[in-house]
Amino acid sequence: MTPVGRKPDDGERYRFILETAARLICERSYEGTSMQEIAAACRMTKAGLYHHIQNKEQLLFAIMNYGMDLFEEQVLAKVRDIADPVERLRSCMRRNIELVTRGVSKEVIIILHEHATLTGEAREYIDGRKKRYVRFIEDAFAEAVKAGRFRPMDPTIVAFSFLGMVLWVYKWFKPDGRMTEQQISDGMVDLFFVGLSPAGTAAPGLSLLPPSTPKEEAS
Amino acid sequence: MTPVGRKPDDGERYRFILETAARLICERSYEGTSMQEIAAACRMTKAGLYHHIQNKEQLLFAIMNYGMDLFEEQVLAKVRDIADPVERLRSCMRRNIELVTRGVSKEVIIILHEHATLTGEAREYIDGRKKRYVRFIEDAFAEAVKAGRFRPMDPTIVAFSFLGMVLWVYKWFKPDGRMTEQQISDGMVDLFFVGLSPAGTAAPGLSLLPPSTPKEEAS
Repeated sequence: MTPVGRKPDDGERYRFILETAARLICERSYEGTSMQEIAAACRMTKAGLYHHIQNKEQLLFAIMNYGMDLFEEQVLAKVRDIADPVERLRSCMRRNIELVTRGVSKEVIIILHEHATLTGEAREYIDGRKKRYVRFIEDAFAEAVKAGRFRPMDPTIVAFSFLGMVLWVYKWFKPDGRMTEQQISDGMVDLFFVGLSPAGTAAPGLSLLPPSTPKEEAS
Repeated sequence: MTPVGRKPDDGERYRFILETAARLICERSYEGTSMQEIAAACRMTKAGLYHHIQNKEQLLFAIMNYGMDLFEEQVLAKVRDIADPVERLRSCMRRNIELVTRGVSKEVIIILHEHATLTGEAREYIDGRKKRYVRFIEDAFAEAVKAGRFRPMDPTIVAFSFLGMVLWVYKWFKPDGRMTEQQISDGMVDLFFVGLSPAGTAAPGLSLLPPSTPKEEAS
């Protein structure tokens, strides 16, 4: 099974179909969007659409894979090589919030919203890609605990709390709202990594600076 | 506009329709469920169903109102009168997690998942009920800041971070998974209220106990 399933000779048309379908599905949900409507929005016949796409579920699968590619390119790849685990997590949180708040990422919104729509092998494949991200957060957290930067806790709780804060943003963020993307990002990083305590930044253990040895620049 | 719109003389049948429709919508999404299927699952004709329900959107609206009633009864009403604001928030987090992890709350899952499905007045009405909950968290947080228990932060960031952690649980929780409801609840309360810092519970400001002077009971 190729994750995307496109014919290599018509990649541009294929990309256009994915983008168009993602926009419709994002607006109306997967179940609320018909292949007929997708074909019309692409200015194609339904038969023409089926020349490029096997079926609707394959289309959703391709959109989600594209969204995961986007996510890995714009978040994971940019932070994975940061040597300090706390800075790696902080930077990861910021970039993930940006990805959710920027309207361009309709494929990412679809991954978040249609979490239970795919079935069978396709579902497993996407879930596997998501799990690698959870593992990445768990590992960075464990590394920070080992270095005495965080206290020991269940890494899965920490990972899903991190993700819940960050990904829930798609439910309530309004581009024209009171808070900017930057304020949300600053506020959540501050809350998650420094905490609610009034002792706050004063306590020595709460320092978010890496240990005094200079950090290598990775990548 | 009555939020539920039922005829008072057939409340039981109406309740059965709501429960059945909520189960289907929870499994297949709102767009993926037809009135025909809801009627069949209720062992009624479509005409019989329309005797009780004006239309599909009205049905979704009634389910969401029922979910909000459940939430207010099982979460808000139980914690609203706790005098200590930190304890009020902790208790609120626990009860909200329970509401999401317990499979009975399909109406609550529908509120969470179909956040953008309703339109017009119905949407505004449900959004208003949700906003009152956000305000409740913001107010308790502000009270805790005023009492010197938390450091000052944007209350909206705190409220939506709290909600993100807690409500995202519906996306990943599996009743047969490694973690029990209790472990998730203990872990998240610990993370949110004590924080990641290795200074942790040792720092004086981090005490979660109310101050020594007895507080008045607020209603």
